[in-house]
Amino acid sequence: MIKVGIYGASGYMGSEALRVLLKHPNVSVEWATSRSDAPIEHYHKNFYDRGLKFVRPSEAMPCDVAFFAIPTGLTTEVCQSFLKNGSKVIDLGADFRLNNKEEWENVYQKIHPNWKLSEEAVYGICELHRNEISKTRIIANPGCFSSSSILALAPLASERLIDFDKIIVDGLSGTVGAGSDLDLALHHPEITNNILPYNVVNHRHSYEIEQELSLLAGDTVIVNFSSCYVPISRGILTINHCFPTKALKRNELLDLYKEFYKDEYFIKIIDIPKDENASWNYLPYPWVAAVSATNFCHIGLDIDEKRNRIVVYSVLDSIGKGGALAGIQNMNIMFGLDEKTGLDFYGIHPY
Amino acid sequence: MIKVGIYGASGYMGSEALRVLLKHPNVSVEWATSRSDAPIEHYHKNFYDRGLKFVRPSEAMPCDVAFFAIPTGLTTEVCQSFLKNGSKVIDLGADFRLNNKEEWENVYQKIHPNWKLSEEAVYGICELHRNEISKTRIIANPGCFSSSSILALAPLASERLIDFDKIIVDGLSGTVGAGSDLDLALHHPEITNNILPYNVVNHRHSYEIEQELSLLAGDTVIVNFSSCYVPISRGILTINHCFPTKALKRNELLDLYKEFYKDEYFIKIIDIPKDENASWNYLPYPWVAAVSATNFCHIGLDIDEKRNRIVVYSVLDSIGKGGALAGIQNMNIMFGLDEKTGLDFYGIHPY
Amino acid sequence: MIKVGIYGASGYMGSEALRVLLKHPNVSVEWATSRSDAPIEHYHKNFYDRGLKFVRPSEAMPCDVAFFAIPTGLTTEVCQSFLKNGSKVIDLGADFRLNNKEEWENVYQKIHPNWKLSEEAVYGICELHRNEISKTRIIANPGCFSSSSILALAPLASERLIDFDKIIVDGLSGTVGAGSDLDLALHHPEITNNILPYNVVNHRHSYEIEQELSLLAGDTVIVNFSSCYVPISRGILTINHCFPTKALKRNELLDLYKEFYKDEYFIKIIDIPKDENASWNYLPYPWVAAVSATNFCHIGLDIDEKRNRIVVYSVLDSIGKGGALAGIQNMNIMFGLDEKTGLDFYGIHPY
Amino acid sequence: MIKVGIYGASGYMGSEALRVLLKHPNVSVEWATSRSDAPIEHYHKNFYDRGLKFVRPSEAMPCDVAFFAIPTGLTTEVCQSFLKNGSKVIDLGADFRLNNKEEWENVYQKIHPNWKLSEEAVYGICELHRNEISKTRIIANPGCFSSSSILALAPLASERLIDFDKIIVDGLSGTVGAGSDLDLALHHPEITNNILPYNVVNHRHSYEIEQELSLLAGDTVIVNFSSCYVPISRGILTINHCFPTKALKRNELLDLYKEFYKDEYFIKIIDIPKDENASWNYLPYPWVAAVSATNFCHIGLDIDEKRNRIVVYSVLDSIGKGGALAGIQNMNIMFGLDEKTGLDFYGIHPY
Repeated sequence: MIKVGIYGASGYMGSEALRVLLKHPNVSVEWATSRSDAPIEHYHKNFYDRGLKFVRPSEAMPCDVAFFAIPTGLTTEVCQSFLKNGSKVIDLGADFRLNNKEEWENVYQKIHPNWKLSEEAVYGICELHRNEISKTRIIANPGCFSSSSILALAPLASERLIDFDKIIVDGLSGTVGAGSDLDLALHHPEITNNILPYNVVNHRHSYEIEQELSLLAGDTVIVNFSSCYVPISRGILTINHCFPTKALKRNELLDLYKEFYKDEYFIKIIDIPKDENASWNYLPYPWVAAVSATNFCHIGLDIDEKRNRIVVYSVLDSIGKGGALAGIQNMNIMFGLDEKTGLDFYGIHPY
Repeated sequence: MIKVGIYGASGYMGSEALRVLLKHPNVSVEWATSRSDAPIEHYHKNFYDRGLKFVRPSEAMPCDVAFFAIPTGLTTEVCQSFLKNGSKVIDLGADFRLNNKEEWENVYQKIHPNWKLSEEAVYGICELHRNEISKTRIIANPGCFSSSSILALAPLASERLIDFDKIIVDGLSGTVGAGSDLDLALHHPEITNNILPYNVVNHRHSYEIEQELSLLAGDTVIVNFSSCYVPISRGILTINHCFPTKALKRNELLDLYKEFYKDEYFIKIIDIPKDENASWNYLPYPWVAAVSATNFCHIGLDIDEKRNRIVVYSVLDSIGKGGALAGIQNMNIMFGLDEKTGLDFYGIHPY
Repeated sequence: MIKVGIYGASGYMGSEALRVLLKHPNVSVEWATSRSDAPIEHYHKNFYDRGLKFVRPSEAMPCDVAFFAIPTGLTTEVCQSFLKNGSKVIDLGADFRLNNKEEWENVYQKIHPNWKLSEEAVYGICELHRNEISKTRIIANPGCFSSSSILALAPLASERLIDFDKIIVDGLSGTVGAGSDLDLALHHPEITNNILPYNVVNHRHSYEIEQELSLLAGDTVIVNFSSCYVPISRGILTINHCFPTKALKRNELLDLYKEFYKDEYFIKIIDIPKDENASWNYLPYPWVAAVSATNFCHIGLDIDEKRNRIVVYSVLDSIGKGGALAGIQNMNIMFGLDEKTGLDFYGIHPY
Repeated sequence: MIKVGIYGASGYMGSEALRVLLKHPNVSVEWATSRSDAPIEHYHKNFYDRGLKFVRPSEAMPCDVAFFAIPTGLTTEVCQSFLKNGSKVIDLGADFRLNNKEEWENVYQKIHPNWKLSEEAVYGICELHRNEISKTRIIANPGCFSSSSILALAPLASERLIDFDKIIVDGLSGTVGAGSDLDLALHHPEITNNILPYNVVNHRHSYEIEQELSLLAGDTVIVNFSSCYVPISRGILTINHCFPTKALKRNELLDLYKEFYKDEYFIKIIDIPKDENASWNYLPYPWVAAVSATNFCHIGLDIDEKRNRIVVYSVLDSIGKGGALAGIQNMNIMFGLDEKTGLDFYGIHPY
C-alpha cells in the first residue's frame, strides 16, 4: 500500500484528492491536514460520520507521497522536509508550474523560495510527460484551465497547423474553481443568474499554456486567454479558437485528434456527425456535465471553412482531471501502477 | 458473476442502475434496453465512447436478475417471461409497491395485470424488510419520497411516540425525479428561478408511506404529503412534521434514531449540537448535496419543546438511495453479497 | 413630492426600496446611507452610472419618511431623532413587529431600546391593518415569511375553519432572504445543488404569524414553522398545512379566499381547475417566479378530502411584497396616495 | 395613444414586448395573438388575473404599429396586409435583417417571400441608424448576439483600430434565448450543471455583425462567432476579441468608448479602475445580471498590452435590449417620442 498524506484538505482541491484516495485500492491515507479546529464534517458534509479526522499540519508525518493544496509559495517551504524524508511530492498548486524563474516571479509577484525544486519538478500532464512523470519525485500539477486548453490545442501545436500568435481562448469556470474562500462575487444571490468575467488579460494559466504548447510546437506560441465564472459548481469549458495555416476539414481534424490521443483512456474525442436531420445528433460537442467529478476530458471541435477558423472545445472538472484526480493519475504513474487505478468511474448523469 | 439486465435504460433511473452496475465487482451487465434507435450517448453523454450499446427490448435475454424502469403496468406484463426463465426481478417502478389491490388500482387508475406477482413481491426498503428481501425473487423498489419519509418516521412510528393522524410531510424534489420526458414546467427558463408545487394532495407515494408506517406502528397511520420541484437536478428532501404524544428532548430523539439505525451503513443520523457560539456548528441538519449520487440517506431532526412538534429531515438521491442504488443494495441482499458491494463510495463535495 | 430617505441601502432590502422609490412619481429620494466608502456600484451594479451616491449615516437629514434597513435594535435608536423632526418611519427590520415586550425580548435576545415606539407602531400588512396604517407615523414592516403565511391563513383564521393548534408551515426561501453578509452556507458551490434547512423550530417569524392570526381568530393560534434555503435568489414559498374543523371542498375554499381578498389589488387567488385532461391546466398552484421583483402575492390551495387536510401555498418576493415594496405600499397609504402608485408593474417572465 | 398589436405573444419575445408595452404611457395595446386556445396565464403566469386575453391571429386588426414574433419567413407574409392598412411593422425576427438577398437565402435556407420589404426595412440598432429608423415603416430588429457584439465593436470598427479579419466572438446565452419550444438540451436536469456549445461556426447572427461592422469600417469585416448556452434564464454576454493595429492603453480605449456612446442613455461603459488594493474594485467588467429584464447594455473592456489583444465584454438581455425592448425603443423613435419612454427602469438586484 502506498502511504499518502494530504497537506491542506479543508479546501475543495484537497478534499477531492481525499475522497478518491480513500477508495483507491493501493493507497492508505495516513493523514489529511487542516489549520482549523472545526471537524471535517463542517467543511465536507459528504464525509459525515465516516470515521475521518483532520490532523494539525504539525502532525503530518513522512509518507510515500504527499499531496499539497495550500497557498502559492508555501508548498515549496513545507515540502522540503517531506522530500528529505523520502516522500514524493505532488503539488496541486502553482509553485512549480513554470520553467522560467523570472516569468514565475513576475506572474506570481513573489520571490520563489527554492527554484531548484522547481527545476526538478515535472509538469503533470501525463499525456505529454508520462515518461518523466514516472521518474520524478516532484509533480507540478497543472492549473485547471491549463490542462483543458493544452489538451485541446496539443495536436494542432505539435502538427504546426495553426497560426501561433493568434490563438484566443475563453475559459468558463464553475465556482468550485474559485475555491472555498468567501467572496461577494460568489455569494449565491450575486452569481446565480450571472456570468462574471475575471482575470481577462494576462491570466496566470496562460503562461503554462504558452509554455507547453511552445514545447510541442518547437516555436513561440502566444495564447490570449480570458476567463469567466458561470453559475455551475463543477466543471470548466475552454473554447480554443485558432486560425489554420492550411485548408482543413472537420473530419480530418477529428481524425488527427483521435490519432493523437488514441492511447489515452481519459481523453475522449467527441466525434458526432453534424447531421441535422437526425434529431438525436444535435449538439455534437462536449458537455461539461458529462465529465463532472471524473478524471475524463472530452474534446470536440469544428471548423468554419468559409472564414477559416478552428474552434476546439475541451471540458473537464477543475478539481478532477483539472486538479486532484489528474494528481492521482500522476501518482499512479510515479508508483508504477496502472494509471486508471482508483479513477475508472463513469460520469454521473444527470449531474 | 451475477448476470444482470436493465430493461429500460434510456431514462434517468435505468441509466443510474447501469452506471453503478457496470462497476459492481460481482456483476456482469448483459444488456440494457431502449426502444429508440438513438445511440446510448445521445441520452447519456457520460457513457460516450465507453463501448456500450443499447439492445432492443426484444433482444433482452434471461439472466440472473433484471431491473425494470418502464411505465407502470408494463413491468408486470414484461417480467413474467423473465421469472419463468429463472430471473429475479427488481422493479424500480410502481407495479408492486402496495399491498392492497383495490388501493393500487385506485391510486394508479388501472387494472393491475397480475396481482399474484404483487403479493409475492417484497417492498424494497432493506432497513425494514431485509430478511424477506433475501428470500424473494421480486422486489418492489420504493418511490423516492416514500423511502425518504419512511426512513425518517420509522423510529417514531415503531416506538409509537407520535400522533398517527396528524403527520404532515413536505417533499422537495430535484428535477431528475420528474424523469426525462419533456414538459413545459421543467423547461429550464421556467424552473431555474422557481419552486413548483405539484401533486399536493393524495400523492401516490403517500400510500406507500402510510402502508409501511402502519405496519411498523401496528396501527393506522395517516400521512399528509405534498410535493414541490425545486431547481436542483439530483436529490430530495422530505420535511416530516409530527406531534409527539409525550414530552421529548432533541437528544433523546437523536439517541433513539441512532439506536434504531445503529447497524445501517447507509443511514446517517446528523447529530450536530445546536451550539450557536461555535461558528462552524450552524445548520445542524442534513444537506441534500451531501448524498447526491450516492446510496446514503442522512437524517436529522429537531423538536420545538414550546409548541410540542417534531420535525425530521431526510435527504437522499431520488435515483440513488431513493431508486436504482437502493435496488442494487436489494440485489446484493438477494444474492447473499455484502450489501455495500459496489455502493460504498463517498458523496461528492462540492456537488 | 414626498421627501424620502433610506437608512441602510448597501444591503438587498434597502436597495430594493431605493430601486422602486427612484421611479415613484410622488417621491423624491433625498438620500440613501451606507457605512462603507465603497461606491454604490460596488454593491449594486444595476445602479452603475446612474448618478447615485450613498451618503454617510451622519449626513442623513430629516425628511417626510425614512425607511430603515439596519440591524435589529439599531432602528429604534436611530429613528428617534427622525421622529422628533417630523419624519415618519418605516422599519423594514424587526424592531417593532411584536406586540408583547417580553416575547420580543425573548425572541430577539436583547432588551428593547424603547418599547413605547413599538406600542405606537402599526404592523404593516395593509390587507389587515389599512386603516391604522393610514394614521400612524411608525410602520413595523413584517418579515417575509410572516407576510406570506399570514396572507395564506388569514381567511381560514378569521372564519375559524381550522384547528388552531395544529398548523404547520414550511417556508422555502431564496438566498436573497439571507441578506448580503457572506456565509459559507451561501457560498455558491455549497448551495447551488443543495437545500438547506435552518431555523427549523422557534423561527422568529413564527411569533408574528401567531400574533396576527390570533388577532384574526380571536383565539390563540399556534404556528409550527420551519424554513429552508433553496438555490434561487428571489422569492419565497410558504406551504401552509392545516386541519379543517368541518368538511370543505376546494371550490368553497377558493370562493372564500376570493371574497376575502376581493378588494386587494396585489393579492391574486390562483383559481385554476384541476382538469387533468387539459394539458395546459396542470400545476394549478402559485409559482414563485411569477411574483419575483413585484409587490404581488399569489395564493393557491387544495384540500385532501380523504385525509381532511388543507394546504395553502403563498408566494411573494422576500424583499418585494415580503419587504421593501410592501413598505412602499404602506408609505402610499400613510400619505393618502393610491396604494398602487409606483408599484403597479407586471412580473417578469421568464424570470 | 399609439395603437399597438403583438403578433405572436405566447413565446418569450412577444410576451416581453407585451409586458412593457402594457405600461407604456403612450401606447394602447389593442391585441396580442396566439394560435393556441390555452389562456394567457398558461404561458405567462406573471399575467395571471390581469384581465388579459389572447386573440386568434385572424382577429388581429390594423393598428398604428404591429410587433411580430413568429417563425422566419412568416412575418414577411403576414405583415403585408398590415402595411397596406397603414400599420408600421417591427419584426422581432429575422426576415429583414440582412441587406444581401443571396446571403439571406443562404443563411436561412429558404426563398425570401418578398425582398422589396427587406430593402425597405431599417436595421434596428438605433445607436447606428437612429435617423433612418425615425423615417421608416419597417424595422428589422437585430438578433440578440448581434446587438451585443455590434455595440461592443462599433467604436473599434469605425475608428479602424483593429485587424478586420481576425475578430473572434464567444457568445454566452441564457436559455431564454432558445425560446419556449421544448428540447432535451434545455430540459432542466440536462442543463442546470452544464454549458452547451451550439451553432459554433457559421452562426446566423455572425452575418448581421459582419454587415454592420463592415458598414462602419468601410471595409470587409470578418467575425468568427461561436455560442454556448449557460444555465441562467435571462441575459447574454459576448466576449469580443480582436487584435489592435496600433499600441493602445485601457484608458484610451475606455475614453474612446465613452465618447462614442456619450449621447446614448442605454449604453453604459464600465469604467472601473483595476486597483487591486481596493477590495471593492475587483471585477471591473460588465455583469449580465445587472441588465437582465432591462433595455440597458453594459460594455467593458481590457487590453493585454504584452500580447497585444483587446477584449470587449458586452452584456444585455436577449429579449430586452437584445430583442423586444430595443423594438420598443425603435417604436418610440418611429413615433417621435423620447426614446426612453416606457423603458427607463433600473435593473433588479439581486436578479
